[in-house]
Amino acid sequence: MERPRHQGMAKNTYMRWRLPLVCLLCEVAMIVLFGVFVRFSPEADAHWEEEKKEMNVTSDIENDFYFRYPSFQDVHVMIFVGFGFLMMFLKRYGFGAVGFNFLLAAFGIQWALLMQGWFHSFKTGKILIGVENLINADFCVGSVCIAFGAILGKTSPIQLLVMTLFQVTLFAVNEYILLNLLHVKDAGGSMTIHTFGAYFGLTVTRILYRRNLEQSKDKQGSVYHSDLFAMIGTLYLWMYWPSFNSAISEHGDAQHRAAINTYCSLAACVLTTMAFSSMLQKKGKLDMVHIQNATLAGGVAVGTSAEMMLTPYGSLIVGFICGIVSTVGFVYLTPVLESRLHIQDTCGIHNLHAMPGLIGGIVGAITAAAATEDVYGKEGFIKAFDFTGSYKTRTPSVQGGFQAAGIVVSLVMAIAGGALVGGILKLPIWGDPADETCFEDDIYWEV
Amino acid sequence: MERPRHQGMAKNTYMRWRLPLVCLLCEVAMIVLFGVFVRFSPEADAHWEEEKKEMNVTSDIENDFYFRYPSFQDVHVMIFVGFGFLMMFLKRYGFGAVGFNFLLAAFGIQWALLMQGWFHSFKTGKILIGVENLINADFCVGSVCIAFGAILGKTSPIQLLVMTLFQVTLFAVNEYILLNLLHVKDAGGSMTIHTFGAYFGLTVTRILYRRNLEQSKDKQGSVYHSDLFAMIGTLYLWMYWPSFNSAISEHGDAQHRAAINTYCSLAACVLTTMAFSSMLQKKGKLDMVHIQNATLAGGVAVGTSAEMMLTPYGSLIVGFICGIVSTVGFVYLTPVLESRLHIQDTCGIHNLHAMPGLIGGIVGAITAAAATEDVYGKEGFIKAFDFTGSYKTRTPSVQGGFQAAGIVVSLVMAIAGGALVGGILKLPIWGDPADETCFEDDIYWEV
Amino acid sequence: MERPRHQGMAKNTYMRWRLPLVCLLCEVAMIVLFGVFVRFSPEADAHWEEEKKEMNVTSDIENDFYFRYPSFQDVHVMIFVGFGFLMMFLKRYGFGAVGFNFLLAAFGIQWALLMQGWFHSFKTGKILIGVENLINADFCVGSVCIAFGAILGKTSPIQLLVMTLFQVTLFAVNEYILLNLLHVKDAGGSMTIHTFGAYFGLTVTRILYRRNLEQSKDKQGSVYHSDLFAMIGTLYLWMYWPSFNSAISEHGDAQHRAAINTYCSLAACVLTTMAFSSMLQKKGKLDMVHIQNATLAGGVAVGTSAEMMLTPYGSLIVGFICGIVSTVGFVYLTPVLESRLHIQDTCGIHNLHAMPGLIGGIVGAITAAAATEDVYGKEGFIKAFDFTGSYKTRTPSVQGGFQAAGIVVSLVMAIAGGALVGGILKLPIWGDPADETCFEDDIYWEV
Repeated sequence: MERPRHQGMAKNTYMRWRLPLVCLLCEVAMIVLFGVFVRFSPEADAHWEEEKKEMNVTSDIENDFYFRYPSFQDVHVMIFVGFGFLMMFLKRYGFGAVGFNFLLAAFGIQWALLMQGWFHSFKTGKILIGVENLINADFCVGSVCIAFGAILGKTSPIQLLVMTLFQVTLFAVNEYILLNLLHVKDAGGSMTIHTFGAYFGLTVTRILYRRNLEQSKDKQGSVYHSDLFAMIGTLYLWMYWPSFNSAISEHGDAQHRAAINTYCSLAACVLTTMAFSSMLQKKGKLDMVHIQNATLAGGVAVGTSAEMMLTPYGSLIVGFICGIVSTVGFVYLTPVLESRLHIQDTCGIHNLHAMPGLIGGIVGAITAAAATEDVYGKEGFIKAFDFTGSYKTRTPSVQGGFQAAGIVVSLVMAIAGGALVGGILKLPIWGDPADETCFEDDIYWEV
Repeated sequence: MERPRHQGMAKNTYMRWRLPLVCLLCEVAMIVLFGVFVRFSPEADAHWEEEKKEMNVTSDIENDFYFRYPSFQDVHVMIFVGFGFLMMFLKRYGFGAVGFNFLLAAFGIQWALLMQGWFHSFKTGKILIGVENLINADFCVGSVCIAFGAILGKTSPIQLLVMTLFQVTLFAVNEYILLNLLHVKDAGGSMTIHTFGAYFGLTVTRILYRRNLEQSKDKQGSVYHSDLFAMIGTLYLWMYWPSFNSAISEHGDAQHRAAINTYCSLAACVLTTMAFSSMLQKKGKLDMVHIQNATLAGGVAVGTSAEMMLTPYGSLIVGFICGIVSTVGFVYLTPVLESRLHIQDTCGIHNLHAMPGLIGGIVGAITAAAATEDVYGKEGFIKAFDFTGSYKTRTPSVQGGFQAAGIVVSLVMAIAGGALVGGILKLPIWGDPADETCFEDDIYWEV
Repeated sequence: MERPRHQGMAKNTYMRWRLPLVCLLCEVAMIVLFGVFVRFSPEADAHWEEEKKEMNVTSDIENDFYFRYPSFQDVHVMIFVGFGFLMMFLKRYGFGAVGFNFLLAAFGIQWALLMQGWFHSFKTGKILIGVENLINADFCVGSVCIAFGAILGKTSPIQLLVMTLFQVTLFAVNEYILLNLLHVKDAGGSMTIHTFGAYFGLTVTRILYRRNLEQSKDKQGSVYHSDLFAMIGTLYLWMYWPSFNSAISEHGDAQHRAAINTYCSLAACVLTTMAFSSMLQKKGKLDMVHIQNATLAGGVAVGTSAEMMLTPYGSLIVGFICGIVSTVGFVYLTPVLESRLHIQDTCGIHNLHAMPGLIGGIVGAITAAAATEDVYGKEGFIKAFDFTGSYKTRTPSVQGGFQAAGIVVSLVMAIAGGALVGGILKLPIWGDPADETCFEDDIYWEV
């Protein structure tokens, strides 16, 4: 599957005309497409002043902006600072981590506004965008940031833009299948964001396997200060995850509940991560890699179920399990994935996103299947699962089945899509670095 | 009071089985107790859809979530990034500062949800939690983070978990005495959080006095980069303190006022800190220790009174005084506390939390005693001090007296509790570091 | 224009009595003036409980606090962490960047509350402050932080306080002329904050021209870690800019729209910045200076028009252009400004604030002039431009003319004010550093 590589083989990583060309082409395309398609949603349009009266809205505070904007900003911080700084742990790849994440996310959110817009906000020929679209665009890009984690340090910025273009497209298709065709609930994206993003990225890095990567092995580690920068990323992801999982839930109790469940799951996850980090190391010392990553697995794993009646203790149990699974994964699975399956996963996204994402999908399916009118209340039950219209007669156990189907669809889409995109990224035209210059800022950055 | 120590005495700091055991035991206990006791508050429960109608709530925006969630997230950042990074100033203890703070806070918030829940949110056998409980749990843990500042670098993670267990318990008892029995106002926690947390921590560090700590004196300083990381902590504490002091105030004008008063007090505090930092140094140069800490004293000192009609200029005066008191404390008091009283206060919490906390309690008592119906309005007066039910006839001066009593109770509880917990932490089973390895990450961390 | 300097000329940078004196005098003056003038706005006053009923406000959520507080906190972070860390790129001036920014902003917000209060919130002899005043004070100080960027590393803290005193005053006057006399819209401050602040700062640095600054040229660069700290500043400015531009817009659709437009403009700006950063460097490598700064130009340039019906694609176009203009400015203009015009612009504010600010003013004028009732709706049109009272008959094209006049007024005020203040700062009494000790923390800081 790999093309032959010779140690020291010269690679053309000169970006001067290729990168500008790709960036400018992408952005011009965005402008044209936005010009044709994108307008403001009614609540962001100046006509709102009149529509408010027609719709009997008595106060400006009823504008969706006030329900969601604080959560949006938290999510925004997670995407740009959270992911950007988390990936800064590499000792000589800080510029690449934060800078390329910035580039791909800035492009990705624009393309996501369009792709998701066509599927979900398309009315009379226009995509009407409001704050919820901004959150969804950030979510979509989150899945790209996850995939970036697997190939961190081994790709050129052009490859990242190409990957973003394709991954956002496939994300939107997968999301449409899950949310609209299967009528699945996944407000925090255990399936659509984490499972999809992680298996996509793992497949891409498998295709891009580099036999001689040990040449740059010494650069794959961290130094003291890079670990402290990475903790900024970790903490912002950890603190704002309750906003992530509640950002697009229904107004009222659903948002409230999603935040509480996530808070609980994350808290439990920290304790089991610490426990297993110490336990699995001979000298009993804590490993920053685990603290930086596995503490977050609890947030991933309640992504589907946080808005449901998972209950605080249910959340604690999920967090408890995921801290263990994720830490054990770092210690035992990551080396095996590389040596046996040739999956070189720079950031360990398999442990932070893939496995917890799958767990999250399963927990969501179970929680949905176990729902009763007694627990949710008659109206709450209908509202929570949107059992209206053509879904009026769907039962919880059927819903659970569809939720499970959603996991499978996401997996299939991720692996098929990742294989396709990995193949494209292997073309020798994108300026990727040679093995010996991986994980090194100064190929693409003026240092 | 100190057990004899010999230089170079071998200490068993091996954590491999002890730390995992303690973490897992704690977390399992949390799961069991949450399973038995913790459920969602009505506003976070799916039944809300029906209750809303019964209670004539016309809009989802009336859900307490929208009143408090943005403040909650700010408080959350203060606890995890604010305290975690502020304590990163030590040159070789960055992992311990941010990592142990993460561990103890993640455990503490769970235990606080239970302890505070039993006292304040216990209905028909269940603790019903909503966003306000999350804020209160963060607050409670804030007092543990403060105490951690005094013993930073000198304790094992197990000791910190043990301290958290006891301190959260005592915090909840003290808070109950103040808020429920004395009917004291303390929304920003000058007494319950700062006074209690600081004197608790100072007592613990007194009991754990290390005669030969000068062996690791060189590691107690900062380096250039560690000071910059610490400024991240300082600034987030400083910027979000208005959210801290207003987070659990009554809806409406009280939250609004608390934010403004805190903003004013903090601004004034920066100027007097800078003035005295320069004035008290022979060469007139500014000292980062003061900037990192004393600039925050103004927020501590309006913790009780910020939601009252302290007025903007009153807040400026409080901030003005506290910047001075705190900076002078760092220069003159901290060395004396160590040499005379054997109180080794790593972060100087006596200057940032203890003295300003006391001042905050006093300012609160005076502001309450000076309240009049003229200043608050008839209804505002009753609402501000909750002079309803059995407190209907309480006068401002009586309220002032109870506020003052609250300071004394907090002090007594802190010192008695600190002595007890300090004694427990002296047991030679918790794996604390030897004197010569204090303030050093590599005993507990893989570096 | 420059006073003669001799290499190694001894300069008195001893701050011990001067800095404390200035700080304490400023703060005492603030206390006295606040005591005489500043009170709570009705929505922050305890009388609100009664007024609510009189004004038929049915819910506490209608308090302006809940419309604006989340945005306020984002703006607050931009001023203290955003600007403070962005300026941390200098290898040996991190304390000065974040510390002096902290000092001047803490003083500036107090003085701005007064100055802006007298012009805009003065009722029956008192300035009544609420959350909107806090945002405006932060905005005003933002313009001082911008000017600080031009003189970073070359001034004493006393000079910065003096500059703040004068600049805040002039800002308030200029703002009054624009908003009240010309009835201009400028919610995100392209004119009042960026154009004014940048040209003010550029004029000051011109007056303070240092012929022999190349002596400290090596210290004007960055190191790897200082660039990563600066990225914290960049990202927080970038992420929260939608809050900045929407913070004081009208409730409802205007805030919503302003956030969306800014989000779009910033996203586009990142791609053209990356493109031109790579294109303009011989080896095609990306330059962190551009990424840290030019990516933000898109936020500056929609400051006036974001709350108008600029539309998402209009925003993309503005961001597209500004990323190019700003990056080109860093490469070609900044060196010329120094060599030809003797403008030594440490942070390149000409590229990030001055040019994009002017563009923002122009875009605002055009967008206003192009407004129609069709696009805004009849009521939306009146509300968006506040065409009520004596402005009832103003047409869009006239409004466009006034907007353009606002740019000119801001420019004139900035340059005249900057010249005046620059002259004052040249007086040899403020303790500024010698040329060879510029960009060096240890003159003013205990390192």
